[in-house]
Amino acid sequence: MSFSPLTRELIEALTCLPGVGPKSAQRMALHLLDRDRAGARKLADSLQQAMEKIGRCERCRNFSEQPVCHLCAQQSRDPSLLCVVETPADVIAIDQSGSYRGYYFLLLGHLSPIDGIGPREIGADVLEQRLAEGEVKEMVIATGTTVEGEATAHYLSEMARQHGIVASRIAHGVPMGGDLEYVDGNTLTLALKGRRIIE
Amino acid sequence: MSFSPLTRELIEALTCLPGVGPKSAQRMALHLLDRDRAGARKLADSLQQAMEKIGRCERCRNFSEQPVCHLCAQQSRDPSLLCVVETPADVIAIDQSGSYRGYYFLLLGHLSPIDGIGPREIGADVLEQRLAEGEVKEMVIATGTTVEGEATAHYLSEMARQHGIVASRIAHGVPMGGDLEYVDGNTLTLALKGRRIIE
Repeated sequence: MSFSPLTRELIEALTCLPGVGPKSAQRMALHLLDRDRAGARKLADSLQQAMEKIGRCERCRNFSEQPVCHLCAQQSRDPSLLCVVETPADVIAIDQSGSYRGYYFLLLGHLSPIDGIGPREIGADVLEQRLAEGEVKEMVIATGTTVEGEATAHYLSEMARQHGIVASRIAHGVPMGGDLEYVDGNTLTLALKGRRIIE
Repeated sequence: MSFSPLTRELIEALTCLPGVGPKSAQRMALHLLDRDRAGARKLADSLQQAMEKIGRCERCRNFSEQPVCHLCAQQSRDPSLLCVVETPADVIAIDQSGSYRGYYFLLLGHLSPIDGIGPREIGADVLEQRLAEGEVKEMVIATGTTVEGEATAHYLSEMARQHGIVASRIAHGVPMGGDLEYVDGNTLTLALKGRRIIE
């Protein structure tokens, strides 16, 4: 005895979502069947459309249904600045801060030799071509503060140096409004290392 | 600046899932686009199939793609027993225990006058027709132990009485292997109320 074949299939298909195990998938399937069939139909349609039409932007590798994404297509940005990030969410976060007006390049991950993720997998070859075009003067490296993120940052700064391009790393330290007692030790270490003389 | 239109649509569509807010939806969408397009396509297909084909069993109201579900179609069950539960997951739980060999009836919820959920909404009319057929001799009420579940149980037992049918309620108490010190007060109250003389 169990659910009907189609219900079982749906529960199993839902476990492809990150963080969704068999129990949550069951709850989701029953909720959709019972209360939100319209939403489920819309989700099916969106998934299909997205998977079919969304590819990668030729310039920055971000997800886009156009060959060049709407961000790379903006002429008003400063072409001498290129910010290298790990994920599309990072682009949103940086852009919403309103403090950066250059272009972006996405690695969609970070170097991780143990998992077989080398320079090619994170698009280092595409990035190198971009640097070779000669427009970029400064590469702002905004990869994560994990060991892999730092290794990736180091690799990228070497690449920039070879092309005679300035490489910079975004500052890491105590966040605004952050209470010192709740900030972890690693962050404090970075904050102290990165301290600046008050002029 | 934000995600591409199709990505945004997908993120929004994913929030129809219970327990999924904008942040989780974003994580899910990016994960599917980046790592599991095959899974996403399969999910889209499953959702579509399920929403189109899964209806309710005429006999027990459980979700089923057949007019009568595979459980109600089993001739080997005892037709004098009818267990009334709130959800499809409850059916699975009871059936997997292997201690019940009758048929089921699903309320798909419980009475909740505040939310406008009356007898009709939980299918009490369909249940009454079933009782009127005369085959059922005992109705095993397995609704939840919430206030609404208890009220529903009371309502159902009244209905059974009117049809000259025995109504029983599954026992509530300390679970097997449960350490008394970790059992909540309400459960202990039920366990004490429901105590039986050792013969």
